[in-house]
Amino acid sequence: MKPVVIRNIERADPQGLEAHGVSTVHEAMGRFGLMKPYMRPIWPGAAIAGPAVTVLAQPGDNWMIHVAVEQCKKGDVLVVGCTTDNTDGMFGELLASSLAARGVQGLIIDAGCRDVRALHEMKFPVWSRAISAKGTVKATLGSVNIPVVCAGVNVNPGDIIVADDDGVVVVPKKIVTDVAQKARKRSDEEGCKRQRLASGELGLDMYNMREALAKAGLVYLDHPED
Amino acid sequence: MKPVVIRNIERADPQGLEAHGVSTVHEAMGRFGLMKPYMRPIWPGAAIAGPAVTVLAQPGDNWMIHVAVEQCKKGDVLVVGCTTDNTDGMFGELLASSLAARGVQGLIIDAGCRDVRALHEMKFPVWSRAISAKGTVKATLGSVNIPVVCAGVNVNPGDIIVADDDGVVVVPKKIVTDVAQKARKRSDEEGCKRQRLASGELGLDMYNMREALAKAGLVYLDHPED
Amino acid sequence: MKPVVIRNIERADPQGLEAHGVSTVHEAMGRFGLMKPYMRPIWPGAAIAGPAVTVLAQPGDNWMIHVAVEQCKKGDVLVVGCTTDNTDGMFGELLASSLAARGVQGLIIDAGCRDVRALHEMKFPVWSRAISAKGTVKATLGSVNIPVVCAGVNVNPGDIIVADDDGVVVVPKKIVTDVAQKARKRSDEEGCKRQRLASGELGLDMYNMREALAKAGLVYLDHPED
Amino acid sequence: MKPVVIRNIERADPQGLEAHGVSTVHEAMGRFGLMKPYMRPIWPGAAIAGPAVTVLAQPGDNWMIHVAVEQCKKGDVLVVGCTTDNTDGMFGELLASSLAARGVQGLIIDAGCRDVRALHEMKFPVWSRAISAKGTVKATLGSVNIPVVCAGVNVNPGDIIVADDDGVVVVPKKIVTDVAQKARKRSDEEGCKRQRLASGELGLDMYNMREALAKAGLVYLDHPED
Amino acid sequence: MKPVVIRNIERADPQGLEAHGVSTVHEAMGRFGLMKPYMRPIWPGAAIAGPAVTVLAQPGDNWMIHVAVEQCKKGDVLVVGCTTDNTDGMFGELLASSLAARGVQGLIIDAGCRDVRALHEMKFPVWSRAISAKGTVKATLGSVNIPVVCAGVNVNPGDIIVADDDGVVVVPKKIVTDVAQKARKRSDEEGCKRQRLASGELGLDMYNMREALAKAGLVYLDHPED
Amino acid sequence: MKPVVIRNIERADPQGLEAHGVSTVHEAMGRFGLMKPYMRPIWPGAAIAGPAVTVLAQPGDNWMIHVAVEQCKKGDVLVVGCTTDNTDGMFGELLASSLAARGVQGLIIDAGCRDVRALHEMKFPVWSRAISAKGTVKATLGSVNIPVVCAGVNVNPGDIIVADDDGVVVVPKKIVTDVAQKARKRSDEEGCKRQRLASGELGLDMYNMREALAKAGLVYLDHPED
Repeated sequence: MKPVVIRNIERADPQGLEAHGVSTVHEAMGRFGLMKPYMRPIWPGAAIAGPAVTVLAQPGDNWMIHVAVEQCKKGDVLVVGCTTDNTDGMFGELLASSLAARGVQGLIIDAGCRDVRALHEMKFPVWSRAISAKGTVKATLGSVNIPVVCAGVNVNPGDIIVADDDGVVVVPKKIVTDVAQKARKRSDEEGCKRQRLASGELGLDMYNMREALAKAGLVYLDHPED
Repeated sequence: MKPVVIRNIERADPQGLEAHGVSTVHEAMGRFGLMKPYMRPIWPGAAIAGPAVTVLAQPGDNWMIHVAVEQCKKGDVLVVGCTTDNTDGMFGELLASSLAARGVQGLIIDAGCRDVRALHEMKFPVWSRAISAKGTVKATLGSVNIPVVCAGVNVNPGDIIVADDDGVVVVPKKIVTDVAQKARKRSDEEGCKRQRLASGELGLDMYNMREALAKAGLVYLDHPED
Repeated sequence: MKPVVIRNIERADPQGLEAHGVSTVHEAMGRFGLMKPYMRPIWPGAAIAGPAVTVLAQPGDNWMIHVAVEQCKKGDVLVVGCTTDNTDGMFGELLASSLAARGVQGLIIDAGCRDVRALHEMKFPVWSRAISAKGTVKATLGSVNIPVVCAGVNVNPGDIIVADDDGVVVVPKKIVTDVAQKARKRSDEEGCKRQRLASGELGLDMYNMREALAKAGLVYLDHPED
Repeated sequence: MKPVVIRNIERADPQGLEAHGVSTVHEAMGRFGLMKPYMRPIWPGAAIAGPAVTVLAQPGDNWMIHVAVEQCKKGDVLVVGCTTDNTDGMFGELLASSLAARGVQGLIIDAGCRDVRALHEMKFPVWSRAISAKGTVKATLGSVNIPVVCAGVNVNPGDIIVADDDGVVVVPKKIVTDVAQKARKRSDEEGCKRQRLASGELGLDMYNMREALAKAGLVYLDHPED
Repeated sequence: MKPVVIRNIERADPQGLEAHGVSTVHEAMGRFGLMKPYMRPIWPGAAIAGPAVTVLAQPGDNWMIHVAVEQCKKGDVLVVGCTTDNTDGMFGELLASSLAARGVQGLIIDAGCRDVRALHEMKFPVWSRAISAKGTVKATLGSVNIPVVCAGVNVNPGDIIVADDDGVVVVPKKIVTDVAQKARKRSDEEGCKRQRLASGELGLDMYNMREALAKAGLVYLDHPED
Repeated sequence: MKPVVIRNIERADPQGLEAHGVSTVHEAMGRFGLMKPYMRPIWPGAAIAGPAVTVLAQPGDNWMIHVAVEQCKKGDVLVVGCTTDNTDGMFGELLASSLAARGVQGLIIDAGCRDVRALHEMKFPVWSRAISAKGTVKATLGSVNIPVVCAGVNVNPGDIIVADDDGVVVVPKKIVTDVAQKARKRSDEEGCKRQRLASGELGLDMYNMREALAKAGLVYLDHPED
């Protein structure tokens, strides 16, 4: 593959998915698209949804992130995958200032991040696999806006990224509308379920599980087997 | 082993062990019973002690947690082990609402947890090996209230679980009273020791270590060896 | 190697390196000396710089930390390496009280730490590889103030340790003055760069990257290749 | 818990379980009792089954293995758990010579092993979590023949250990006869199944899966969805 | 995503890529498409290349592998990804007998494998992330022949999988011919280079590196700096 | 630190340390200097000892290995550390041909290695942290023959590296003669000990452990405590 920057990508509309949260969106998709749980927010409380600008970078080299900044628009989420596992601090306060100036909502990086206190103070959210001050070089090309695998999920440019304290989920462009509908439905239903459970109703009854459990062979005993 | 739910377990009395903290209780037991350090609280500051209701679950399947809720009483701590290493989000806000309604103090799960912001807001404490939005199925039976290995420790139903920011320790039913006594003694002594050390007295002197160190062969030099 | 305590080490002057932060100091050194990113602060917000008192300890044995306390002076940073990977809680509130009484700034330990809530309350900073209540023995000698490898970096007694939320970096004694100068220069320049980037100027232009990228073969396309 | 050596344990009879192999025995038990997959043989091809003599050891300290040797009889399998994760080389050629002299069949150790070439030459089988030359001390007591958790499984003294190239499984004393019967049955049936599958019959048909799959909602398409 | 089996996939022609080996093919692709290095052969010496039949499976559930067998043809390579990290033994001798009967060349599975000795004896090659006897259920649907991420790489049905002792690389359908050409060229050139290097010529000279190194600032000294 | 190649290093004489093996040499040193156990030979059976030529490399960049070849002499062992954790295949058949032509005994690399089948056939031994076909760039300078931390141990150019199936140990130049003497003594004594243990004498008696165990408080019981 030759190094390339794709300039005019098609962006999906996030349709307010951040309001439903990662867990609900992931369920609404049929339990797909979730990045591996090692992707953690560097500070708690952020919740975003926006179209992906993607970067494929060499380990320990953040040259292509500088290139990608120019391709970002207001509302985008920058997604960085690496050609091999790496935890170096490829992103910090300076790049965040640049992205914030363009209205980028946040960064998802399958590598390390640094200047975490400054990023928290400027309220720029980052989900990364590590916090590391390790400096990087600018020596080898990668690509911008090609499909990349980031933390175990294939991300196409323009796909919607939803991220909060539970992690990061990727919604493919074509299904965003469908997922948004289902997520709204789940959110509505969950409020009701939560109320019933909080009032003491058992999930066993609310979900009608008792028959299926008995059929599967579950046995209740009053004393431990010996 | 056939899937089974044991209904009427014998519960030990926690005897206020949460006041002493995990580190002190673990020392009072003779340094046993501590879960592996990958078990971390999803929010800081909680400190609990209560009898274990135990669950053995299949990876990626939270059916048995729903079953276990019904077996929980006020003051219990739910403990979930898996038949294989797994980080899926087997527990979230809905199950927490259900457990809270029954007066359960918290959850210890050798797997993942989700809805962490909501759990923090409702002050429901969880110690888990991961935070993950990964949804789970309800397809395969496990057991409730059998002995389970959770994060490296064997837990019998009714054993006392003590958990705080330092981790999770398991106190077997039979020795709770003895451990509580020793923990109280340690807590009392530690206040005094802390004061002496804080005033500048050296541990070397307070613990009379100098002779043993010399006997073991420790040498003091004023210049580095070459 | 025989167990030894070196008493009168030469300490470098930290020259206010904590003000620049770990990432800047690491860059000022030419990107060397950074400990592995698994070393994390047990509470956020601390930033320290001071000369290292070093300990080489056996896994699960904190005897030599007790020995090292006596060798510490006001402003020192205690650095503990282990002869093998270990996460046991070798350090807690009592040792912290002792170190604080001597004016020690903080602890860097390639093992576990416990009593983390108390340590936060007393504002004693620790960077460790784990939080663990696992108690330790006092049975086997190690050494104090010999060169130790801690989290992947060779530390000589008296070297300057800089630690903050980004991690831990080690500045060898001989180059502290040079590094401090370069760090100041970087800090000064970064303020200006940050302002330019925040105002919308691209790094591509500010760093004159466009020519080098073109020369390396980077291609811009308006539509994805098929 | 006080350090203790239990001298006269009750040993189960292995009933030739090594002939069926770990995978079959584990299935015959209902898929329980398997140690974590990080436990690997240091040389391939060994297959053993015998009653466990158990050791609980301190990390980096093999004193209790020396103590345990005396408690071993012909046909036993020595099982070593540690109070915390450790990879040190707690076992080598000398201890193997001693165990071999007593007729011990092999070692299961949740830590490291060394002298692996010599152990291969003398055909002494070891399943360990690591190969490491790291030497250990003899400084702190543990116990022999108490229940220990080894690689995620609770092992009682006298339980039957089955180990081969697929890993290690623990069969509790009380169910050995039942497991042996079921394992024989499975072994017999597997020969027949293998023959049918090798001749081209599909598992889908042999196990009658098609109806269940359809009922669960599986759809077959001739062209990828777009 | 709904569970689906795509029946008639388009298969690329492997064009003898196994002869060049994974490292050469990966270089010929421009250093893309390599699975993570945790994917290891369960026995050494196999080298295969063939079109992928893909499976997306639930952790601890091998139902869809049974489904996939029917979709395999002579020369295929079965590729199994999981919806979450898992090491359970989802594949063993019986499934291998079934695949071998259909002429399948081997299995790539981002999970565990068992019966490894039998698989070695029948010369059925498997690349997996773990060896584990852990049995699996047949309870939850996944899909066959949809794009899956396996060990960090996106695999489309029909893509060519090349695997040997160095690992596993995925060649997208569209570029197989181009990659085969480049791999042949590299193989031809490597023989010549190897000969020159083996005769003592330095890579520094053969690749004309000296000027670039000097330009980058490399300095040669005869004595260590102090 | 500026990139530098030190040309004329002082080499220690290995004094036949390979004959004693890594475990014995490590004990003879007083249990120091052992690399972490993730360093494994890519093929079994090699045993070497020779002076280190050291390389500090950037992750994913093997430029400096090419530079280092020229500095190697007959009998040397090449040692490569990285500035950050990395598993890329920085070394393969071509570089091995070049090193073999200069009489280099083997490679120790805290990163990945590829072409492992070819390396086995040409009997060139490598100890690495991973096997990976991942190709590397030649873009960024590092250094040759400066002190490097490799797999947790500080290595100075010219130090003696001893490596076999048990791992890799580093013997500092100044103590080689002393270590060689002690290793010989240990080897001599071990033969005798092995014979006594193989004849059935217990280590408890041979090492006179019984008194120390009793003094430490070990208790023998004939029936399990309840």
